[in-house]
Amino acid sequence: MRTLITGGTIVNADATTRADILVDGERIAIIGTDLDVEADRTIDASGKWVIPGAIDVHTHMELPFGGTFAKDTFETGTRAAAFGGTTTIIDFAVQPRGGSLRQGLDAWHEKADGRACIDYGFHMIISDVRDDVLSEMDGLVDEGITSFKLFTAYPGVFFSDDGAIFRAMQQTARNGGLIMMHAENGLAIDVVAGQNVAAGNTDPYYHGTSRSPVLEGEATNRVIRLAQVAGAPVYIVHLSAREALDEVRRARDAGLPAFAETCPQYLFLSLDDMGNGFEGSKFVCSPPLRPAEHQEELWTGLLKDDLQVVSTDHCPFDFHEQKELGRDDFRKIPNGLPGVENRVDLLHHGGVREGRLTPNRWVEVISTAPARMFGLPHKGAVAVGLDADLVVYDPNRQHTISASTHHMDVDYSCYEGWDVVGGADVVLSRGTVIVDGEAWHGTPGAGQFLKRQRSPYLR
Amino acid sequence: MRTLITGGTIVNADATTRADILVDGERIAIIGTDLDVEADRTIDASGKWVIPGAIDVHTHMELPFGGTFAKDTFETGTRAAAFGGTTTIIDFAVQPRGGSLRQGLDAWHEKADGRACIDYGFHMIISDVRDDVLSEMDGLVDEGITSFKLFTAYPGVFFSDDGAIFRAMQQTARNGGLIMMHAENGLAIDVVAGQNVAAGNTDPYYHGTSRSPVLEGEATNRVIRLAQVAGAPVYIVHLSAREALDEVRRARDAGLPAFAETCPQYLFLSLDDMGNGFEGSKFVCSPPLRPAEHQEELWTGLLKDDLQVVSTDHCPFDFHEQKELGRDDFRKIPNGLPGVENRVDLLHHGGVREGRLTPNRWVEVISTAPARMFGLPHKGAVAVGLDADLVVYDPNRQHTISASTHHMDVDYSCYEGWDVVGGADVVLSRGTVIVDGEAWHGTPGAGQFLKRQRSPYLR
Amino acid sequence: MRTLITGGTIVNADATTRADILVDGERIAIIGTDLDVEADRTIDASGKWVIPGAIDVHTHMELPFGGTFAKDTFETGTRAAAFGGTTTIIDFAVQPRGGSLRQGLDAWHEKADGRACIDYGFHMIISDVRDDVLSEMDGLVDEGITSFKLFTAYPGVFFSDDGAIFRAMQQTARNGGLIMMHAENGLAIDVVAGQNVAAGNTDPYYHGTSRSPVLEGEATNRVIRLAQVAGAPVYIVHLSAREALDEVRRARDAGLPAFAETCPQYLFLSLDDMGNGFEGSKFVCSPPLRPAEHQEELWTGLLKDDLQVVSTDHCPFDFHEQKELGRDDFRKIPNGLPGVENRVDLLHHGGVREGRLTPNRWVEVISTAPARMFGLPHKGAVAVGLDADLVVYDPNRQHTISASTHHMDVDYSCYEGWDVVGGADVVLSRGTVIVDGEAWHGTPGAGQFLKRQRSPYLR
Amino acid sequence: MRTLITGGTIVNADATTRADILVDGERIAIIGTDLDVEADRTIDASGKWVIPGAIDVHTHMELPFGGTFAKDTFETGTRAAAFGGTTTIIDFAVQPRGGSLRQGLDAWHEKADGRACIDYGFHMIISDVRDDVLSEMDGLVDEGITSFKLFTAYPGVFFSDDGAIFRAMQQTARNGGLIMMHAENGLAIDVVAGQNVAAGNTDPYYHGTSRSPVLEGEATNRVIRLAQVAGAPVYIVHLSAREALDEVRRARDAGLPAFAETCPQYLFLSLDDMGNGFEGSKFVCSPPLRPAEHQEELWTGLLKDDLQVVSTDHCPFDFHEQKELGRDDFRKIPNGLPGVENRVDLLHHGGVREGRLTPNRWVEVISTAPARMFGLPHKGAVAVGLDADLVVYDPNRQHTISASTHHMDVDYSCYEGWDVVGGADVVLSRGTVIVDGEAWHGTPGAGQFLKRQRSPYLR
Repeated sequence: MRTLITGGTIVNADATTRADILVDGERIAIIGTDLDVEADRTIDASGKWVIPGAIDVHTHMELPFGGTFAKDTFETGTRAAAFGGTTTIIDFAVQPRGGSLRQGLDAWHEKADGRACIDYGFHMIISDVRDDVLSEMDGLVDEGITSFKLFTAYPGVFFSDDGAIFRAMQQTARNGGLIMMHAENGLAIDVVAGQNVAAGNTDPYYHGTSRSPVLEGEATNRVIRLAQVAGAPVYIVHLSAREALDEVRRARDAGLPAFAETCPQYLFLSLDDMGNGFEGSKFVCSPPLRPAEHQEELWTGLLKDDLQVVSTDHCPFDFHEQKELGRDDFRKIPNGLPGVENRVDLLHHGGVREGRLTPNRWVEVISTAPARMFGLPHKGAVAVGLDADLVVYDPNRQHTISASTHHMDVDYSCYEGWDVVGGADVVLSRGTVIVDGEAWHGTPGAGQFLKRQRSPYLR
Repeated sequence: MRTLITGGTIVNADATTRADILVDGERIAIIGTDLDVEADRTIDASGKWVIPGAIDVHTHMELPFGGTFAKDTFETGTRAAAFGGTTTIIDFAVQPRGGSLRQGLDAWHEKADGRACIDYGFHMIISDVRDDVLSEMDGLVDEGITSFKLFTAYPGVFFSDDGAIFRAMQQTARNGGLIMMHAENGLAIDVVAGQNVAAGNTDPYYHGTSRSPVLEGEATNRVIRLAQVAGAPVYIVHLSAREALDEVRRARDAGLPAFAETCPQYLFLSLDDMGNGFEGSKFVCSPPLRPAEHQEELWTGLLKDDLQVVSTDHCPFDFHEQKELGRDDFRKIPNGLPGVENRVDLLHHGGVREGRLTPNRWVEVISTAPARMFGLPHKGAVAVGLDADLVVYDPNRQHTISASTHHMDVDYSCYEGWDVVGGADVVLSRGTVIVDGEAWHGTPGAGQFLKRQRSPYLR
Repeated sequence: MRTLITGGTIVNADATTRADILVDGERIAIIGTDLDVEADRTIDASGKWVIPGAIDVHTHMELPFGGTFAKDTFETGTRAAAFGGTTTIIDFAVQPRGGSLRQGLDAWHEKADGRACIDYGFHMIISDVRDDVLSEMDGLVDEGITSFKLFTAYPGVFFSDDGAIFRAMQQTARNGGLIMMHAENGLAIDVVAGQNVAAGNTDPYYHGTSRSPVLEGEATNRVIRLAQVAGAPVYIVHLSAREALDEVRRARDAGLPAFAETCPQYLFLSLDDMGNGFEGSKFVCSPPLRPAEHQEELWTGLLKDDLQVVSTDHCPFDFHEQKELGRDDFRKIPNGLPGVENRVDLLHHGGVREGRLTPNRWVEVISTAPARMFGLPHKGAVAVGLDADLVVYDPNRQHTISASTHHMDVDYSCYEGWDVVGGADVVLSRGTVIVDGEAWHGTPGAGQFLKRQRSPYLR
Repeated sequence: MRTLITGGTIVNADATTRADILVDGERIAIIGTDLDVEADRTIDASGKWVIPGAIDVHTHMELPFGGTFAKDTFETGTRAAAFGGTTTIIDFAVQPRGGSLRQGLDAWHEKADGRACIDYGFHMIISDVRDDVLSEMDGLVDEGITSFKLFTAYPGVFFSDDGAIFRAMQQTARNGGLIMMHAENGLAIDVVAGQNVAAGNTDPYYHGTSRSPVLEGEATNRVIRLAQVAGAPVYIVHLSAREALDEVRRARDAGLPAFAETCPQYLFLSLDDMGNGFEGSKFVCSPPLRPAEHQEELWTGLLKDDLQVVSTDHCPFDFHEQKELGRDDFRKIPNGLPGVENRVDLLHHGGVREGRLTPNRWVEVISTAPARMFGLPHKGAVAVGLDADLVVYDPNRQHTISASTHHMDVDYSCYEGWDVVGGADVVLSRGTVIVDGEAWHGTPGAGQFLKRQRSPYLR
């Protein structure tokens, strides 16, 4: 099967060029000017951009949380991702408390296998740092699970204490893995949250005010320093606050291998969105949405490479029945937002269109940097020899985000009614067209598990 | 004329791939896996890297300085550059004091025209900020001279006062040009230098100690703040000191469009090199070489993108007869070092081989970032449609740097006897092989003047 | 002549105590509990505080500026100071351009001699750094003129270039003097001011907007770095902006001997005050009033000792006839505000009453620290053996500031109609009661010239 | 009983004066020039300084630690303190784990009552934060126990988790108490210490290397941020490392009420002292001694008031039998050093004599600031009405520190054989001479419990 994409403008992280692309099988075979080759199919990309398929390194398909499960399966979630221009996800397998990493990994393979419509990898959430678990980490790195997530938040659930985190970091200093941290001081936050509920402040809004940005900054510095002493790199997930960004900057200025991602919700939404009574539950995630003045700081962080990646932390719960679990106590609202479908367009609209990012930097933060950071050398660029994960992107197409039209299996959208400019017209996953306008041509199970390499994390 | 480069590993800033390259005329026409096309010439790049030709944005061919001229002409200098893997230079045209920018530009066109063996652009040194000169700047930007250099050093020669610098920055805030600054506090430095000479401290070493790194930091902050108030970006040339880097970091952390380059001499040489009696004159440049502990800071700056570019400040004077002008007074030693030929290999050796930079980041700092920063979208990447400025680079070739073998027209080398690993095997300039091993196939005058675009300077 | 002050609470920088004070002649002779001694006069200080007379280290009596003179003479100015609880001023003698320091000093002695009602010292403004002037500095230090002021502002008037400033700093590194700096980038400011006037923006408000706080920060860093290289301490006068404070903090955090004062106008007034048409001229001084958000930063600086001193920069010009010189061009408005009478009360009201400063810290910033900083060991504390410069201060007395009642010889007040709590009831200058409620008992010429010691500047 | 001290130079934090002092009963009654009064006793202080008795706010008399007890009792410890010029200590009462604060306080009152030779107060160590304990805190504040210490170090012993620390801070935000923090990341440190022992690295030196200064910096920032969110001030005890000082600076620069003390051992001793086999156990304390380059940073912190207080953390264990408990495992070495007797002289020698502190600042950090910080308005200055805790100090007396001559009940000295200049000649505690040269005139039980006020902590 050979597909020819003609007339488009290839936008890579390093250059913008006009050229045709021949996809042969699963790889990009030829890029050339006015290619004169035969193909089974030709896609006219005139007036469009061709970009590497976006990579979302932070998703939670079917995550169990607070007695329920994130709605999207690997099937619905990856389908929605594809419609949004994302052709790779890295999801978080979860070690069951008391169990082994292997058990968690097996469970996640089972969830994904035969269902994923695009390629996927796994990070491993470590719930329970024990000697045997530390040993297990080495094996997982060799199997392509080269990154591990721990939490300073969620005491009693995912929380690890500093000694445990430090030991896991020491292990990656030896085995080349990368520790990812949810950095909020959960112990202090839980005190405030409990006091709020005791005082009758049970609305979703108090989820936001219970979690001070200062406590995200604190935990961010803490895990960076633990990593420094352990001699390991560290990657901060879903950074939301100026205070946390300042700590990442400080570490990077000193030359430390500290990295961070942010998410569209922190760039576009704010604490105010949580304030409309229980409607605010739609926006409950952790870290919470911040006062609006944090947004521009995060854009600056992206521009200057203090934030290297934009992911989604996609973790959708229906407003009805799921978010409602916390109607009387914000602490019981399942944490998480849908977003895997919207990231590429939101970043294009608010980043490229509004002059905050060049098209090249946009490609870098949604695709190239995620691929490099997480050991996927075959992804992240439109280049000969790499996987033909390609998106024909129309930078001028206007559309309206809505739960009534989106493909995620969740009953609301955080961006309901937003008009955005830019959208994926055609999406190829390893050479196969899976999205063509509104048409879906993907196949559950066609997505492959990605055995990832160690992160080069030099930058 | 079609040239096929087969079997190489293409190293771009964003990805590393295995593919063949067809050059047709002056451009890269096709990149493909196992390309089956006809070509006039085939270059076997097996086991080698193919990288975009390096770009040196800071050279001074035939610069008049202290009563003499930098030795290399556009012919000898660009020939040496090519042997070192560099296929584009941006040289500094100099406005004569009291004269117009046009006069300076004309003079530089005359120096380059018919002589340059590789493509070249010009920055414009403004010696004398006047109302008419400010107006002239707009025209130059439209002609592709989109960057202007001013000095806080060299009182009485190139020095501009803060009001003049500020006015020039305001002009670029309007016309889209980019101000480049030599940032040292020349007024204070000249006091110290004069005191040193008065005290009989006339050796080259005192050139170094007269120019405190604190005074580079000061001037760097100063010009960044002037640019901030003017609403203009600013680019610091030949940053040498931790104190200056700290100021650039501080500005970038705050989101300011401040940029900087460093040079190999500051990454590899140190104040100690200036200490061996008059031998030290070989290393006299400004800013001067710094104590060795500054080097690792600069490498960190490169890694974290606080330094975006490595250039050479190539400005060669013979040790005999030229450097000797300052035998009795270090202030009379012509300032400048040869280096246009050595940058790519030194950065490969000390950066890539020693684990400080990935191969991709190496390409970025020597080619991609310089191209983007200075408005050369057709350069800086191995990509279809771009200029076929290509280097087949052998990352394993060991060679010894020496004045006896280098191609620069200068009687010494700062790196005499250094063994470095990595070297350009074949070099193409817009499709024409100009270097093939030790053989020279270039042609004076084949290099074209590059009408540059405005810098996108978003990052 | 013996005066007994009974029943008061002595507030010193280091402690608060209840005790009586016996003044014998010019000195404090005895402090004791329920002193049973004979005295010529007894002052009942029950319910009041007794504090050391305040010291204003920044006044400009009869300063020539822009073709006119600051209104207050040494007689009217020191009388007003005394009414405000200030018993010592340090005024700025001015070297005439082209002339010697001696000429300036002689002129100032002449202004003060026989007229000052309280003790006074002189700093020396250096208008013209020459070799002979540098030599002269040494002699002045020995005569008790131990501090020298230079300017990075006012090109063509007081401006010195960086080389000149650096040389003066080197001189004090040798002779133990202290360089005081007016730190604003006057060269850039004059460009903006000229552009404003050219654009028809001639109102006083544009005086404020022409002088960016960023350019105060820049110059502050610059002079600190020059001092660092010269090996000398430096004192920033009338610091007004957060950006400048940040530079002082940065220097002090690094251990550098950098010091700074601020003034009440920067703590209480803001750019908005300059906005009411030509009324704004009443508030024209340099640096200008800043946006209100700078105020709280300055209070923080005072609290944490990053600002050590509060002075007034008292330099009064009548609104009528004097300020009016700049009715058509803000650049012609004489720069300066009246304030010598209001500092102590304003700081008490806004500092002590509003909980920003303890009473002890208030005494420290208005009296003790100024005395130590500028070499006056006999002043600045209520302690036996020191000069009996004493103020019986009523911390509860409310009064209204008004030009109709103040004692400064100027036709307006910047604080017209402000109600403040706290006021000097009785003021002694070296043992003599000179203010007693509204009654004036001072004598022109009773104030003595203070031969100051070198600053210990350790902290 | 009236005592007259004649001819001395009174050195206070704010001024230096020559005057006589009459002590009447327990208070300073009169200070005057050439006092002509009758007295029961006259002390000739000619050529000497008279300073306020020093205050050591960090001692551990009879502290149980690791199965043994700190050697000095309140009797031997306060006697030694007095010989060293210290007339007040604040010791740490310890809440028994599971018990009440009251139990701990009662136990400490019992230890001190009838034994202390100088005045003393208590801080309260909270070992176990519970709801009832939080309530108890309010009562203790009213009883004059206005400060509480918690630990991020010593897991399983004194360690509190971040939620507990945060709750205690919230309590002091309400009741006006001050939280004092031992800030090291004990959880991570214990991992490293355990790994060291497992690897056979059991020598005292590894105590030092197990406790990275980075982990002190981390914990310091953490507790500052917890306090910031709680709206409470925080005081860092025994700050030892540049990394921790940097965090205090950062907080103070931002205006936060963060305070810190250091101790002589961190100013004078270094990691090298721990390296001589088991001899190093003499220097085992936590935080540990740091590499020598930290010392000058701490001096800078003292100079600039980023460190406000010098205390001792006096906690002596005999080298024989006590320190020896850890001969095979450094973790079993009782943590603590003797020092209560040496602080004043060491600070005079290394601070005043070596030009790092003025005599006034020396008095401030050893006496005035401790008194203000911990709510002792009757102490900390030589002023009429205050307690007559006075030291006639000879700034020129040279003596040699040695365990053979010191008065602490411990068999070694950390400063054995050091020659220091400066020593207390006569010491008065509330009007009574308790030390006169080598003679001891003190009385166990004469020292009184000090009911302290809340800290004003404004600065």
